[in-house]
Amino acid sequence: MRIALGISYSGSAYEGWQSQLSGKTVQDQLERALARFSAQPVRVMCAGRTDAGVHALMQVVHFDTPLQREIRSWVRGVNAFLPPDIAVQWAQEVPDEFHSRGSAIARRYAYVVLESPVRPSVEAGRVGWVYRPLDGAAMQEAIGHLIGEHDFSSFRAAQCQAKTPVKTITRIAISQRAGSGSNYWRFEFEANAFLHHMIRNIMGCLLAIGQGKHPPDWLAQVLAARSRDVAAPTFSPDGLYFLGPVYEDHYGLPTRTAAYDWLP
Amino acid sequence: MRIALGISYSGSAYEGWQSQLSGKTVQDQLERALARFSAQPVRVMCAGRTDAGVHALMQVVHFDTPLQREIRSWVRGVNAFLPPDIAVQWAQEVPDEFHSRGSAIARRYAYVVLESPVRPSVEAGRVGWVYRPLDGAAMQEAIGHLIGEHDFSSFRAAQCQAKTPVKTITRIAISQRAGSGSNYWRFEFEANAFLHHMIRNIMGCLLAIGQGKHPPDWLAQVLAARSRDVAAPTFSPDGLYFLGPVYEDHYGLPTRTAAYDWLP
Repeated sequence: MRIALGISYSGSAYEGWQSQLSGKTVQDQLERALARFSAQPVRVMCAGRTDAGVHALMQVVHFDTPLQREIRSWVRGVNAFLPPDIAVQWAQEVPDEFHSRGSAIARRYAYVVLESPVRPSVEAGRVGWVYRPLDGAAMQEAIGHLIGEHDFSSFRAAQCQAKTPVKTITRIAISQRAGSGSNYWRFEFEANAFLHHMIRNIMGCLLAIGQGKHPPDWLAQVLAARSRDVAAPTFSPDGLYFLGPVYEDHYGLPTRTAAYDWLP
Repeated sequence: MRIALGISYSGSAYEGWQSQLSGKTVQDQLERALARFSAQPVRVMCAGRTDAGVHALMQVVHFDTPLQREIRSWVRGVNAFLPPDIAVQWAQEVPDEFHSRGSAIARRYAYVVLESPVRPSVEAGRVGWVYRPLDGAAMQEAIGHLIGEHDFSSFRAAQCQAKTPVKTITRIAISQRAGSGSNYWRFEFEANAFLHHMIRNIMGCLLAIGQGKHPPDWLAQVLAARSRDVAAPTFSPDGLYFLGPVYEDHYGLPTRTAAYDWLP
């Protein structure tokens, strides 16, 4: 039978999601834990590979197993073999045609950014950082240029393996938790799919606009150029969270996990 | 001249605040950074020692230095020599009679606890965890027994060096960020001073009451017993944050730092 798992993890200690010879990735940790729990090798497919340092509130994986276990036991049982910064959040049987990546009709990410004269410390690795004040209205105006179907070549990493640079962004939402002399900003993105480094490259541009280095219209120029050369530098992975993939309702899979409420 | 610094740090990677031969404490890191910045040995006094794994949003230290530097330079200059999980938040000149511990008229702490069937992962070390649902009304009733001046021997660690077990708790506030099937709870404590492990021991009892293991009145019995034997086990340091000391207004020191707004 085919099983889907929702996984959350802190990416700080790992070399990204995808399995490496070093064995120091989230996938390596998860497959080792699944192998110990089920006493046989298990290979998983994921909804979206995350870079080193990027966190996931809900990565989704699937795999096939001949094991007949109560479905709940895949949560507590596998968690017993995982390190403290990775945990299975839910397990569910899915039909054989379900594919964690192929069945996903959309993906959601969030960036949390601290705007403060002083760098983060207690929340280091959990938030990005800018020391100049951010202009929320300017960023809000800028994101209007990105919504919809576009060729996002200007925000695409050289090593990107996607078949096409044309993707559809359906939602970008900016919110702010105001403090005294500092702010935590949250940027949420939803698209049918993202190119490699696309969100980190968009964030580099958005934060440049927020800091007054470029006007909001500059983002339309960057998009139209279809060239990585004109965009701002790739922003740090600190503060980037994979919120999870979106599937058709009939699969009945959870859409978010507890830690969503932990983000500022 | 005497300088006070506000320091924030994640305690996860350190053997607590206080300097050890191992050198793996927050105080050791700070004193090394101060020595490099000022090119001479610096010894600091802190407002409150934190245990291994306990975080601080605003530890306050003071030290004397013959160095004449612009006061702002103690923030950015020292931060350049500190690891990413420790940062000076502010620096201020203080009169010679100011003492980070002796002048503090109160201390504030917060506990963040995840109530969820599944353990934390992306927020591991940043939150405590209970898997049984918590009864907010029962905990709210229980804390009434603790407010005011009491002998807190029942919540005192064996190795506590305080002169007296009599302390005055002026405030305990419980708040909740509700999610779907899970909740993040925040418990804030303010007292003139705390005994060693006092908050972690109180939390052990409060969470036992919240989970229905004891009625709210049990906390009054535990307090009256003046014996560690009757209380619940010491709760995990995960999720405990030193919010900072309180000084008389005339010192003009900041009362909170940016990361306060980062807590759920």
